[in-house]
Amino acid sequence: MKVITGVISKETLEISEIRSQNLNGCEVRVNGAVHTIRDMGEVAFIVLRKREGLLQCVWEQGVSDFSLKEIKEAATVEFAGIVNREERAPQGFEIRIRTARILSEPAEPMPLQISKWKMNTSLEAKLNNRAVSLRNIRERAKFRLQEGITRGFRDFLYGQGFTEVHTPKLGAKSAEGGANLFKLEYFHRPAILQQSPQFYKQMMVGVFDRVFETGPVFRAEKHNTKRHLNEYTSLDFEMGYIDSFEDIMAMETGFLQYTMDLLNREYADDLEILGIETPRTDQIPQVRFDEAKQMVAKKYDRKFRNPFDLEPEEEFLIGKLFQEEYGADFVFVTHYPSKKSPFYAMDDTADPTYTLSFDLLFRGLEITTGGQRIHDYHELLAKISARGMETEGMEHYLAAFKHGMPPHGGLGIGLERLTMHLIGEENVREVTLFPRDLSRLEP
Amino acid sequence: MKVITGVISKETLEISEIRSQNLNGCEVRVNGAVHTIRDMGEVAFIVLRKREGLLQCVWEQGVSDFSLKEIKEAATVEFAGIVNREERAPQGFEIRIRTARILSEPAEPMPLQISKWKMNTSLEAKLNNRAVSLRNIRERAKFRLQEGITRGFRDFLYGQGFTEVHTPKLGAKSAEGGANLFKLEYFHRPAILQQSPQFYKQMMVGVFDRVFETGPVFRAEKHNTKRHLNEYTSLDFEMGYIDSFEDIMAMETGFLQYTMDLLNREYADDLEILGIETPRTDQIPQVRFDEAKQMVAKKYDRKFRNPFDLEPEEEFLIGKLFQEEYGADFVFVTHYPSKKSPFYAMDDTADPTYTLSFDLLFRGLEITTGGQRIHDYHELLAKISARGMETEGMEHYLAAFKHGMPPHGGLGIGLERLTMHLIGEENVREVTLFPRDLSRLEP
Repeated sequence: MKVITGVISKETLEISEIRSQNLNGCEVRVNGAVHTIRDMGEVAFIVLRKREGLLQCVWEQGVSDFSLKEIKEAATVEFAGIVNREERAPQGFEIRIRTARILSEPAEPMPLQISKWKMNTSLEAKLNNRAVSLRNIRERAKFRLQEGITRGFRDFLYGQGFTEVHTPKLGAKSAEGGANLFKLEYFHRPAILQQSPQFYKQMMVGVFDRVFETGPVFRAEKHNTKRHLNEYTSLDFEMGYIDSFEDIMAMETGFLQYTMDLLNREYADDLEILGIETPRTDQIPQVRFDEAKQMVAKKYDRKFRNPFDLEPEEEFLIGKLFQEEYGADFVFVTHYPSKKSPFYAMDDTADPTYTLSFDLLFRGLEITTGGQRIHDYHELLAKISARGMETEGMEHYLAAFKHGMPPHGGLGIGLERLTMHLIGEENVREVTLFPRDLSRLEP
Repeated sequence: MKVITGVISKETLEISEIRSQNLNGCEVRVNGAVHTIRDMGEVAFIVLRKREGLLQCVWEQGVSDFSLKEIKEAATVEFAGIVNREERAPQGFEIRIRTARILSEPAEPMPLQISKWKMNTSLEAKLNNRAVSLRNIRERAKFRLQEGITRGFRDFLYGQGFTEVHTPKLGAKSAEGGANLFKLEYFHRPAILQQSPQFYKQMMVGVFDRVFETGPVFRAEKHNTKRHLNEYTSLDFEMGYIDSFEDIMAMETGFLQYTMDLLNREYADDLEILGIETPRTDQIPQVRFDEAKQMVAKKYDRKFRNPFDLEPEEEFLIGKLFQEEYGADFVFVTHYPSKKSPFYAMDDTADPTYTLSFDLLFRGLEITTGGQRIHDYHELLAKISARGMETEGMEHYLAAFKHGMPPHGGLGIGLERLTMHLIGEENVREVTLFPRDLSRLEP
């Protein structure tokens, strides 16, 4: 009987394996995609794109046993050759090729010059050629960092006693009312796509005390801005037995500290490719909504129009102010007005026109909304009633409260927005593999 | 300026903290939900449900400074009391309560007896009271193990050089044709929910060499069986530079080995609560589709009807046969007929009526479908054409191949099915937090 016993180790080596095993002068086998070819006549540099980076291989007349013409850009190949220490090569070594095996060949030339360090290409063109444009080393590195953020979120929360949940994206009614919902037919019944796991994660606090989810959310908003998507990845958590809503901000700060450390430790290559220094997370200032509004109005001589919400420009200026005066990349803005908060937000007993809520601004952009939630069943019913809302469709949510819930709160982080400002991009589509917006449903 | 500096450490202790710090005789504070109260007169056992398990607390007349009547089942509370070693208690110790603080109270009595070890409740009733039924210790443990599987999948693949991706769930056309798709309107354009990240993960092999995703998939199938859901969590990976489709099975075996080890190490409490021994993964037999069919027909004297696919009963019998004859919990069934395979499956050059594909059966249930894919652009076009299919809507997918793709393959694992058979459940809804099926769109 034939059996499989585990991962098959390969004869071909990865960049880190060659580096760590000190193989200078040894023959090795490597594979990869032909990223670029620089033909110098009797010598040619064939740079392979591998998952760990670029690897310089050298074709030499008389040494390599094949014609350079056999190797096309965008082919995938396997080379056998000698490791040669070479400080000018991207990895500090190169491979002097002896033999080659072609694994696959492209059918047509590249539509974009992906081998350039910075592609001189519009966002539109990059998105229209996504499968190709992402092969650029810098484009790819953005998504490696995005992986690091998601990974940091999960690993940190596992360590803090959170349980990961998978809540349904198809539902009968959503957490936050009827607007901006994608609607569909579900076996002859009306259904929606969830715009947040809010109700579910709260229900699960009664089960696991602390839960998180990393998954897609859907918003049928007709915004067409640089910071909105109609489908994005939300990093959500919800935690019970809190003493105050500051526990939630503290947990988020812990996540950011853990994650920046993880990026510096395990994603150093990608940070270097993009020339990024991770932001300061050792202490994050917190400021009340009303105070922040006043500070910005005063410092930048700006009239404020909407007293119940922050305009994007105000968020930008709050970020600027705290950067200038305290060197802070992040600011927690707390105590948003009750009037603009969702029904489940807990009012501040000291002044019920404000809620125990917060946004986290990262360099002037809102990347998180969170806060303490109402946990008492009667209080929740009273709030729903005071808002003139119906409980219909919320029976299951309310049942959790009817049968006892601890004091709790949580937050949602927009993964793409956090990635965007970490990297210093100005359009959230730059850090979304396949963005969905008003005009884009493909690729 | 007020600042947040990181996670706030709590004065209340978790079970593992009390256990590891040897606090016998010391006063501690603990919080939790009142899981059950056993009133013995002058003494009462108040069992708290905490995220790490059940904690026995003892109310004693004259010692505890409050009346037992103040404590209701399903309330959440904070107790201060003395740690007392007690072998008969669930954790080997109990808390002799001195003072209590009520954090929240339920509004109504429980609809289900969640404090019973095994709830004597139908699946239907459990699903209709999901926020409450999951508070049962055994119910909850199933989802802890499910977390362990997802976590094991990711951690193992990070270690193998895979990059995590987030691909869109809203799309214009799906990987595997038009049947069984949920349809919706996307800003006045027809859209669908993806039934698999297949196209996207293949495209991303050209970028990252190895990718994975853990996310929801949507299937509008009108099946009403114990093993089908209309929304489920798929664990997908795709890897480039494979030498054979056996590399994929080897990677999956590695994942299973890593994950069972993780469960035994970090989820031992949950395994014990459910009385589970993890299955054997040191070697997994592989058998060809046609041979498996014959073996089952012979051993169980069973006629086979459909020569191109395995009926569920045949899968069950293959599982049984390999369990009986080789003590195997898992079996790879390989080389499925081309006729029933998707267009992108690579045919076996030795006999093109079969593909280089496999299913993984776990105790007779298919939990994975995978295989090698066609990587040559012209070959892919020829296959599409031979099937009488259109390339319309596949331009972006095909572009990846047009511009060069390495030999590659991958798989998709149904998380709920794997969890179900690990735990020994017979209905996939038992291991789905909020199942979506023909009749169920809520809670």
